[in-house]
Amino acid sequence: MLRVALIGAGRIGRVHARSMSATQASRVVAVADANAEAAADVAAEVGADVRQIEEILADPAIDAVLIATSTDTHSELIERATAAGKAVLCEKPVDLSLERAERALKKASDTGRPVMIGFNRRFDPNFAALKAAYDGGEIGRGELLSITSFDPAPPPVAYVKVSGGLFRDMMIHDFDMACWLFDGPPKTIFATGSALVDPEIGAAGDVDTAVVTMTWADGRIAVIRNSRRAGYGYDQRIELLGSEGLLSAQNVLENTVEKITAAGALSAKPVHFFLERYMRAYEREWAAFVEALQEGRPMPVSLQDGVTALACAELAARSAATGRAVSFSPEMADA
Amino acid sequence: MLRVALIGAGRIGRVHARSMSATQASRVVAVADANAEAAADVAAEVGADVRQIEEILADPAIDAVLIATSTDTHSELIERATAAGKAVLCEKPVDLSLERAERALKKASDTGRPVMIGFNRRFDPNFAALKAAYDGGEIGRGELLSITSFDPAPPPVAYVKVSGGLFRDMMIHDFDMACWLFDGPPKTIFATGSALVDPEIGAAGDVDTAVVTMTWADGRIAVIRNSRRAGYGYDQRIELLGSEGLLSAQNVLENTVEKITAAGALSAKPVHFFLERYMRAYEREWAAFVEALQEGRPMPVSLQDGVTALACAELAARSAATGRAVSFSPEMADA
Amino acid sequence: MLRVALIGAGRIGRVHARSMSATQASRVVAVADANAEAAADVAAEVGADVRQIEEILADPAIDAVLIATSTDTHSELIERATAAGKAVLCEKPVDLSLERAERALKKASDTGRPVMIGFNRRFDPNFAALKAAYDGGEIGRGELLSITSFDPAPPPVAYVKVSGGLFRDMMIHDFDMACWLFDGPPKTIFATGSALVDPEIGAAGDVDTAVVTMTWADGRIAVIRNSRRAGYGYDQRIELLGSEGLLSAQNVLENTVEKITAAGALSAKPVHFFLERYMRAYEREWAAFVEALQEGRPMPVSLQDGVTALACAELAARSAATGRAVSFSPEMADA
Amino acid sequence: MLRVALIGAGRIGRVHARSMSATQASRVVAVADANAEAAADVAAEVGADVRQIEEILADPAIDAVLIATSTDTHSELIERATAAGKAVLCEKPVDLSLERAERALKKASDTGRPVMIGFNRRFDPNFAALKAAYDGGEIGRGELLSITSFDPAPPPVAYVKVSGGLFRDMMIHDFDMACWLFDGPPKTIFATGSALVDPEIGAAGDVDTAVVTMTWADGRIAVIRNSRRAGYGYDQRIELLGSEGLLSAQNVLENTVEKITAAGALSAKPVHFFLERYMRAYEREWAAFVEALQEGRPMPVSLQDGVTALACAELAARSAATGRAVSFSPEMADA
Repeated sequence: MLRVALIGAGRIGRVHARSMSATQASRVVAVADANAEAAADVAAEVGADVRQIEEILADPAIDAVLIATSTDTHSELIERATAAGKAVLCEKPVDLSLERAERALKKASDTGRPVMIGFNRRFDPNFAALKAAYDGGEIGRGELLSITSFDPAPPPVAYVKVSGGLFRDMMIHDFDMACWLFDGPPKTIFATGSALVDPEIGAAGDVDTAVVTMTWADGRIAVIRNSRRAGYGYDQRIELLGSEGLLSAQNVLENTVEKITAAGALSAKPVHFFLERYMRAYEREWAAFVEALQEGRPMPVSLQDGVTALACAELAARSAATGRAVSFSPEMADA
Repeated sequence: MLRVALIGAGRIGRVHARSMSATQASRVVAVADANAEAAADVAAEVGADVRQIEEILADPAIDAVLIATSTDTHSELIERATAAGKAVLCEKPVDLSLERAERALKKASDTGRPVMIGFNRRFDPNFAALKAAYDGGEIGRGELLSITSFDPAPPPVAYVKVSGGLFRDMMIHDFDMACWLFDGPPKTIFATGSALVDPEIGAAGDVDTAVVTMTWADGRIAVIRNSRRAGYGYDQRIELLGSEGLLSAQNVLENTVEKITAAGALSAKPVHFFLERYMRAYEREWAAFVEALQEGRPMPVSLQDGVTALACAELAARSAATGRAVSFSPEMADA
Repeated sequence: MLRVALIGAGRIGRVHARSMSATQASRVVAVADANAEAAADVAAEVGADVRQIEEILADPAIDAVLIATSTDTHSELIERATAAGKAVLCEKPVDLSLERAERALKKASDTGRPVMIGFNRRFDPNFAALKAAYDGGEIGRGELLSITSFDPAPPPVAYVKVSGGLFRDMMIHDFDMACWLFDGPPKTIFATGSALVDPEIGAAGDVDTAVVTMTWADGRIAVIRNSRRAGYGYDQRIELLGSEGLLSAQNVLENTVEKITAAGALSAKPVHFFLERYMRAYEREWAAFVEALQEGRPMPVSLQDGVTALACAELAARSAATGRAVSFSPEMADA
Repeated sequence: MLRVALIGAGRIGRVHARSMSATQASRVVAVADANAEAAADVAAEVGADVRQIEEILADPAIDAVLIATSTDTHSELIERATAAGKAVLCEKPVDLSLERAERALKKASDTGRPVMIGFNRRFDPNFAALKAAYDGGEIGRGELLSITSFDPAPPPVAYVKVSGGLFRDMMIHDFDMACWLFDGPPKTIFATGSALVDPEIGAAGDVDTAVVTMTWADGRIAVIRNSRRAGYGYDQRIELLGSEGLLSAQNVLENTVEKITAAGALSAKPVHFFLERYMRAYEREWAAFVEALQEGRPMPVSLQDGVTALACAELAARSAATGRAVSFSPEMADA
């Protein structure tokens, strides 16, 4: 039985709380949040105590922490928690600053404590099935990967302004999916974006519609398409062309009802809310973290993976600004 | 090169004329119709002469005739054409009277001339692919067959009154499909029907919505669903449950466009017109007739098949009238 | 907060226990089962006590009971629980004997206590959405209803022998769906069945593949197709033709992945296990029971509904035995 | 009745011959080809004479010519035919040299004779339906267009070497589709490509897998994905995200049969051969040409459109070579 604490009791923290308390293999013993009321609420729900972060980190009876605080605190909390000997599952992104994230990576690595980054989409049963089929050789060598990720509606502009921009805030998921499916970082990245959904987003210096093309050293290509506003729901698809076929993971629909009339055949649209789409993914993510810890296996999503995705985002932002493909290098010297 | 004549230049005759003149292996040399203008029109289109039926049957240079006249003339024309040594492709149904059809079968058989009945659906590429997969053992032994056949709109009541009724006029196609897929006539038939679409149809003593259940001697079951009015198009589907899986042939849609909005995902409805749905089937039907003739092989749809389908229709009508399952026997003694 | 007890801690009892403890509006305080170990297990899981049925019924602090025992005890437990003043949610079927079920209906009605029968499929989100669309007039008047219900694999013959037969044990769900969608019992029922899956089932006097045709007084028709063995999964579909269109609820698939290769386009099959298919339905069923109780509204599935479905099953069995359509009457005089 | 000549009796010439002779509104009176036998074959099939190009152009009784010769002769034939007063339908691409194509455009324009370029995909019923829905405002303003175009198998390397490369030879269709759907040429183009299918293609200096991102002045974005080898068939799809929804045109499949077994649900793959996919498009293309001529309306695909698509291809090749987005300008000064 793993004893764990939840740091951060906001929206995504609550989502994790549910997964954490649902599994038999772990028990949430403490919840921390700057907002005492939020902390108390969640703690009551999962039968845990409210504690300060310092207390949690100092408590040798707590094995692991899940960090679900605001992004600007991630790096520091990763450093502190690993220094305190805790295993860590930290929400994405690691940081908005690649340099800061790399520092956290260095420090956490020195402690030898396991850190996992919460790229929940890897644990979506559909995407995981696609990955398994691909890794199992069912379509031969991979050639052309396409990732579609459209949100149902744009966030408030106030959020956009502090989000780090579409590439770091939204497309970071897709960068991770691409690197995960193609087993490592790309060689070059080209990005282009527009503010088509909301001119305020453009005025804030960000884009809301973007396409990124990535190439790998052996010639494989990936395309990522993002929009902040699909209107009809949460559009999350992957398509992978291989030497022997095409794999795709289609959207999860609201229901299976179809109505055919003189107007055509009307079926359900994709589910609208990210939680409806990815609840199972959050559950499986937590289970995978616990299982890896208990069996002493490497984390299924490493802190390095989180840094790599962030590096992709940084390169994409640079490419969009210059109109040139930029190169990825481990030291980012070239980037 | 087969030299053929077309007898009947109405709507369905014109459909056949197009298929007949498209194939290289046959040439339409004569067209006959009581309506001289219709005959002249079609003859001009395919480069043939207008002739009287007597002339056609008396001409030794004509190898085969396609009979596309009104149903009440089919039996007699089959008898006369075969007696004159012609091969025959006759439109369905053979007759509205089972007894009369059986007489034609007897007479035609005595001549030894090949007669094919125009059950065009057997030649639809989708249904043919389903049949091939089933015959190839892809779903094991057949257990439960379901045939859906909904017309887009009901015919005029005036037509209904002389049509022989839904079972003989419309469901005859489905009876043939069932006997074709299950390789022979059923053992019992139960039918029920209602006039839901148009009360005038009910007043005329017919039904417009009907379900027939058929069983075979070894326990296999088939269900046929008919409606005179689907509204959204021509709904033509088959589904076959076997010991190892399910085969289905879905509808042919108007196009492949899909539109997803907040209202849902709208795609095309089934094609509306029987010709759009079955044009390829008519072409393949004619080609199959010509090929069988030229290679001296049995007709792909025999006159006996036409009589069997008619016997099914007659039993269905009787079952619907009595509320009892009725038995099929070769001599129809029981029926 | 509703205080409830679970009577029956077998497979289906455990399913209900999970739903019952998931909702905030009710609390499971007691669990009873002849098998003390099973009772203890489930009680521990939901934080309840193990008690005898007598104790539960005698405890005025318990508001409602969920009956998930073997079918032969349902009628008696309904009678005892309602006599003791409890509200009841009882698993389907009410009984294997229509006469016994009618007696329970009479006695329970006399107490005035609410009784709901667990036809969980009504609460499946897909079927519920189809029903809502139909009731909302989206396809006009209903004409032809088709229900497909294929199990993935047949039960052991030992179970079949005590099950009451396919019509009472399996198709009872579909009878309820038909009466629910068409707002009342049918006028006539015709049934046919075969033992195609397993000859042992036939030797036991039952069928494993069956088709039932039902008609309503106004001419509407329903067809139910059952098979004990689809092989590829749990096939659960509904299709309803109306005067202005067609509504269908398709299967729930294992995932959304598609693989296209030279062999064709391979996508996932229907989910295999009834719990995976209907877990949400069980949750919504329990919530609907609690909500109806708390708001003093009629039960969403009445005990009369349970008796009606059983009457359909009995008529179907009789029809299959005689080869005749049989009539449904409220007093079942004819039945 | 339009009197027309076919110049070029190779594979694509034969395709056109069939469409040309199928329509009532035009009559093929002459066929020319350097290969006398090919010319004679096609001429016999459509009931035309074999003639030299000079004779055709000199014959005042011939209204229009269809140019289906090898690409290197297109510009010159367009110039000669328009100078001779003929209307022209010329196969794509106009030329492999943008400069040469622009010269032909200048000369042909001076004659005032109508010239249409054979971008047949605009006439595909599915793509045309998508365009009509978009133009009808069904998904609001266009934002992100995605075009997928995968051939079933790569051409021989010998062909690749003289083809002008993937961007000019294959993607030219998609450039035209993008400019057609977005009503004009893009502002910038970024291209990347790899030789993944066949290293020989790479050795010949070409790519076989490529992605191109295009932006329009108002921020709209298009992505084109090409592969020379999909293996499973001819993969031709379009997807367009607008402010109010998503339009897509899916593949045309071989048939509508589905087989569900324990291995999953297997349905048909896309049709394999371009003719099967686009036969209807060729027919509609010819009909549109004839109709525009007869009604004195502008050509549905202008020679300028052909030059624009070629300019896109040239910019894409340049971008792929430099790793930079390149700008499109009417005078191509920047390009």
